[in-house]
Amino acid sequence: MSAPQSPAARDAYEPLTIDSLEIRLAAVAALRQAVGPSPWRCREVGDGNLNLVFIVEGAAGAAVVKQALPYVRLVGDSWPLSLTRAFFEFNALTRQARRDPGRVPQILHYDQDQALIVMEYLQPHLILRKHLIAGVVLPGLAKDMGLFCARTLFRGSDLSMPTAEKKADVALFAGNTELCDITENLVFTDPYFDAPMNRHTTPQLDGLVASLRADQSLKIEAQTLKSQFCNNAETMLHGDLHTGSIMATDSDTRVIDPEFAVYGPMGFDLGMLLANFLMAYYAQDGHAERPGARDAYKAWILEVVSEICDVFEAEFSALWRAERDGILYPDALYADQGHEMASERALRQTIERVWRDAMGFLGVEIHRRILGLAHIEEYESIEDPDRRAPCEARGLELGRAAVLNRRTLSLSGLLALTRRLDDVPTERILK
Amino acid sequence: MSAPQSPAARDAYEPLTIDSLEIRLAAVAALRQAVGPSPWRCREVGDGNLNLVFIVEGAAGAAVVKQALPYVRLVGDSWPLSLTRAFFEFNALTRQARRDPGRVPQILHYDQDQALIVMEYLQPHLILRKHLIAGVVLPGLAKDMGLFCARTLFRGSDLSMPTAEKKADVALFAGNTELCDITENLVFTDPYFDAPMNRHTTPQLDGLVASLRADQSLKIEAQTLKSQFCNNAETMLHGDLHTGSIMATDSDTRVIDPEFAVYGPMGFDLGMLLANFLMAYYAQDGHAERPGARDAYKAWILEVVSEICDVFEAEFSALWRAERDGILYPDALYADQGHEMASERALRQTIERVWRDAMGFLGVEIHRRILGLAHIEEYESIEDPDRRAPCEARGLELGRAAVLNRRTLSLSGLLALTRRLDDVPTERILK
Repeated sequence: MSAPQSPAARDAYEPLTIDSLEIRLAAVAALRQAVGPSPWRCREVGDGNLNLVFIVEGAAGAAVVKQALPYVRLVGDSWPLSLTRAFFEFNALTRQARRDPGRVPQILHYDQDQALIVMEYLQPHLILRKHLIAGVVLPGLAKDMGLFCARTLFRGSDLSMPTAEKKADVALFAGNTELCDITENLVFTDPYFDAPMNRHTTPQLDGLVASLRADQSLKIEAQTLKSQFCNNAETMLHGDLHTGSIMATDSDTRVIDPEFAVYGPMGFDLGMLLANFLMAYYAQDGHAERPGARDAYKAWILEVVSEICDVFEAEFSALWRAERDGILYPDALYADQGHEMASERALRQTIERVWRDAMGFLGVEIHRRILGLAHIEEYESIEDPDRRAPCEARGLELGRAAVLNRRTLSLSGLLALTRRLDDVPTERILK
Repeated sequence: MSAPQSPAARDAYEPLTIDSLEIRLAAVAALRQAVGPSPWRCREVGDGNLNLVFIVEGAAGAAVVKQALPYVRLVGDSWPLSLTRAFFEFNALTRQARRDPGRVPQILHYDQDQALIVMEYLQPHLILRKHLIAGVVLPGLAKDMGLFCARTLFRGSDLSMPTAEKKADVALFAGNTELCDITENLVFTDPYFDAPMNRHTTPQLDGLVASLRADQSLKIEAQTLKSQFCNNAETMLHGDLHTGSIMATDSDTRVIDPEFAVYGPMGFDLGMLLANFLMAYYAQDGHAERPGARDAYKAWILEVVSEICDVFEAEFSALWRAERDGILYPDALYADQGHEMASERALRQTIERVWRDAMGFLGVEIHRRILGLAHIEEYESIEDPDRRAPCEARGLELGRAAVLNRRTLSLSGLLALTRRLDDVPTERILK
């Protein structure tokens, strides 16, 4: 199976509309089965940056139809984007479903020519960002996400996969060039200079932004992290694992939208995920109904960060001991020689290395969400820029610290820094 | 262009023989032009581990015909090996020819179905190992190899290549699975336990070998280096850059046999190359006509090591400044902002990181050449095992030091250690 689009396929492609969807997809048996007989109700709900997303409802139930557009929705048709991303999303979803069963939406139908995936409608799930803005506590969230990260990152790597299968998969996903290109530019480069598509809360953040862009050590590290992202194909990443790619209820968590999937360093998904929780943490002061009203919720967010890391480490360790069937760190060298401690030491080093990378990716993710093209709803929904800027500024400084201190920063150190920045007076943060 | 072999192609394949070569290749115009009209003289000279190599001579000149065998020649047909390696060798040679013109043999003809490459006959070049055994000084060698490493490693990376082209190339070479598999097993794993195909000078080295295989820190590092090799696709490697893959005269150096080519960490080629010079250094005492007769030659070998590193660094730095057109460390972030020093600091960090990796790969390469399946002629040609073992033992200890100290070992430290091990009495080295 490969991704190339034939000219015929490109010709066949046509974006769905609310009016054409039922006629065009009436013959898809899996969709008919999920939704029931005609008539269907159809609405377009895509709030992301790239795609069309329809919810189709009928007598028997509902389903989601996601279709790639041949351009970046956030920007418009001036920025063309390959339809092959639906192919990579489909392939990523099928792998994630095997590696952490039940955590991604079920696929009902895939049409490569139309770049569309019909999938399970998640209800009453909401995008996690909405919960984080509303201040909703989700008891199972941290555990679910810690397990998802550990299982998908471990089981997609040379620690677990047969090496020929893994190399073939690396080659397959290397075709996801255009979406990688977006990450490479928008995450690692554009935020650190005055790139055309950047925006930030101005003039409030101007001083801090200038200081970040003048920080040469930061700019070196950002590119070293980019080099890691581009080259170090350790495992299949989700590639865009932020809190807008998670749908949750108080008892279920689902991970969606892996169209940025590519083989890359394990720390990337973990760092991006934690970054988005920490930004949500700082955004609370902008959403607090009165001063201090969100303090308990902020404490809960930091518990989530902490628990994700703990669960990740525990599950990754359990998989290391039970499923290390790949070509790396084989038992032939360790347990079979009576050297179990060497395997445990290698595990500690691996977790440590993933964490070092994660701290770096965490920092650049925060920066690009405040300085770059794609911002986050937790911050954007704070309408008063004077209230939003301090929330963003604390994120920016935390990001700088995470990138520059990534070789030494521990989880407890990260949380201490996060809290400490809350205590620094706003006028000092904004300089 | 892709590597898969159709069943038809597999059926068409037939190994050449001295008798069939002229008939079968008579129609190849480029070969006829190089060699001249019939009759041709033909001899098989393959002394490597994998392939058939013929020298074809006629009235007008000579050419080399290299054909892959469907098994590992060193082991026999019990170890099948894909013919696609000729495809990867061809693709690697064409890339290397662009990246460092004149340093690889010219290709006259490539036949994918027959897994054969007709190429320039290098004369009076000899395999570098022969020169190193004979004690021949080659004035241009270090410079040529330092340039080759810098140019191929830099120009095959995201520092230089358009990213879409680089990603497509990573995908292409990810198909070289079987040869990667050989490297992954024979270099990084087998030497460190009692694997079936291993051999070493016994009983002289038994104590030291047991000590290396009991060294848990060493075994962890070896697998961490393997993880780097498998995952970190920084650049197109030669993949087997030892002194048996170099042919030289006193005024020309050529690099041959890149069938192990794959995208991997820059330090791999450099480390393997230096390792082979250092083993040749220790082998000199086994070839010395009288005690001390090779001392000057040993000093020259260390000068070669030192000069390769100096030239590599100078050329890599020059390319960094002049040809950094890839997606990493772009001028937009540095020079265009008046931050040239950030670019220079990033260069130093990059060279340093390559060196750290190289020290690790250097160590495992030495180990596998003394403990594993594929040994080297410099050592093997020392017939008396009591004379060979101390030469090998010094290599093994240097390898251990390089792997375990790779995060701090400098070039001068490496050379000091190399010399210091000469002073340690043989009975202490052999324990």
